Amino acid sequence: MSSVLAVGSVAIDSVKTPFGFRERSLGGSATHFSVAASFFTDVSVVAVIGDDFTAEDESVFREREIDTSDLKRVPGGKTFFWAGEYGFDLNTAHTLDTQLNVFADFKPILSESAREAPYLFLGNIQPALQREVREQSNARFVAMDTMNYWIETAPEELIKTIGVVDALIINDAEARQLVDEPNLIKAAKQILEFGPKMLIIKRGEYGAACFTKESFFATPAYPLESVFDPTGAGDSFAGGFMGYMAQANNLDDTMNVRRGIIYGSIMASFIVEEFSCDRLRRINRSDINNRLSDFKDFTHFDLDESVTVKTFGAISTTSQG
Amino acid sequence: MSSVLAVGSVAIDSVKTPFGFRERSLGGSATHFSVAASFFTDVSVVAVIGDDFTAEDESVFREREIDTSDLKRVPGGKTFFWAGEYGFDLNTAHTLDTQLNVFADFKPILSESAREAPYLFLGNIQPALQREVREQSNARFVAMDTMNYWIETAPEELIKTIGVVDALIINDAEARQLVDEPNLIKAAKQILEFGPKMLIIKRGEYGAACFTKESFFATPAYPLESVFDPTGAGDSFAGGFMGYMAQANNLDDTMNVRRGIIYGSIMASFIVEEFSCDRLRRINRSDINNRLSDFKDFTHFDLDESVTVKTFGAISTTSQG
Repeated sequence: MSSVLAVGSVAIDSVKTPFGFRERSLGGSATHFSVAASFFTDVSVVAVIGDDFTAEDESVFREREIDTSDLKRVPGGKTFFWAGEYGFDLNTAHTLDTQLNVFADFKPILSESAREAPYLFLGNIQPALQREVREQSNARFVAMDTMNYWIETAPEELIKTIGVVDALIINDAEARQLVDEPNLIKAAKQILEFGPKMLIIKRGEYGAACFTKESFFATPAYPLESVFDPTGAGDSFAGGFMGYMAQANNLDDTMNVRRGIIYGSIMASFIVEEFSCDRLRRINRSDINNRLSDFKDFTHFDLDESVTVKTFGAISTTSQG
Repeated sequence: MSSVLAVGSVAIDSVKTPFGFRERSLGGSATHFSVAASFFTDVSVVAVIGDDFTAEDESVFREREIDTSDLKRVPGGKTFFWAGEYGFDLNTAHTLDTQLNVFADFKPILSESAREAPYLFLGNIQPALQREVREQSNARFVAMDTMNYWIETAPEELIKTIGVVDALIINDAEARQLVDEPNLIKAAKQILEFGPKMLIIKRGEYGAACFTKESFFATPAYPLESVFDPTGAGDSFAGGFMGYMAQANNLDDTMNVRRGIIYGSIMASFIVEEFSCDRLRRINRSDINNRLSDFKDFTHFDLDESVTVKTFGAISTTSQG
């Protein structure tokens, strides 16, 4: 039994960015998530692949000691395929081709062992399916991702699913769209009413934020000069977050969520530097620790206890303080 | 002689937002800047107004004890007038009307006393004019703002002006546009080559960042549920920043820049809560201190010294760390 169970897609991606083109490389939400999480804890992946999945693709999981016993190969099937292109500013992926292939019939049944994994990540799949997985699991902490497609086509299913997880991890556009509210703080409050304990917002180059009913946390992103391919940033963020949460394994210490978000941000900062998981496959402990120490430094400020604030004038003198 | 000298526009604004409409209220870069800075230090304003400038408009400066002896009234003239409208998401102001009026001939000549103000803010005016003001001043620290209009119509003048100030304070879209580089970190490096000691980037709801050749700092914004009117956010940010810098008056302590950015963010968080300077006119010391303490709290994280990072596998074991 692994500490973290990832359920989602394992895919073959063909990606074009302003800086290059990579044909048929390893992708998918469960892939990026698992690789990132594997730096912090042991991970199992539940997903489906076809006959075209190569030994080289498999070696990425093996290298990271990710348990693939629930990675099901469908004989005669083809792996989920996605082709996309990013423009000049790398902000939006334009999908050129999607072939669901074996992923179209993905209906995960968790093994005895998988049910007992204490940390569960539901990658971006149909919300009803995410909920079925959640119901099979005895996890103590469940996080999920989703996307605009499900917000538009299955909002009621999605909201039901959000109600049975601990953490919803989405980007700010998705949060606004989900409750049709442009103000993110108001949107977050409404989303928390659906039931999750926390809402973690991914803001791309602007960082991340976390809302609970009692607290707010926000961090800028790691400053990157060379964003090469944004594919997988969100999933590797979730992977770093859940991997750290599982290692710390203490949900009572609220600081762990903040630390998890910093580790998630670091893993996302690596994955976007190269195609696929190439960069994550080469990082080591000191790479991670260096960015951690940078994070601490570039967000740090201390207060000037001696500062004076001048409030005066006809109106302000009538108020306290 | 005041500590901070603000040169820019004093205007009459008519602003429409999804939440209301305010006709002919006090606006302008020098106004919002001065009011925000006045909480931290003494401020003088150099600007031009017309006969239509009312006693009520003037009272805002008087309340905040802002020195208006260089606020020049042009007999028979009309004050700079701007009318704008914000859409649903409050992100972009659509200009409905601009009447430069007396501002069209604004050519500031600094008084003996104004030249000696140690902190100078050049609000968004024609870059050549900003440079003429800068040349008249003996300030020890000069900051400037600009806008997309000058980037498009007077880029060479603008770059020359940027070269003779200490701090350029612009938003991220402007930074990208200025050097035609979508990656903000790369853009910042190129802008620093123009000569300023620091580049401060305003990111609206995402916060602010500061680049020098040696350092990087970033902070999220104060989380606001009720953004009512974004007009003046950038100038009040600059005002809080410069006001604190002048009060601290120690350019050798680099932490002061970070503290200044936090105070700037706080002043911006207040001004957007109501039309014009209405909110800033009513805040007191404890309002500011409460947000300061919130800032410290919602950005805080500490590291987990016991965390382990697992690097293994065929590739990563060959690397150090």
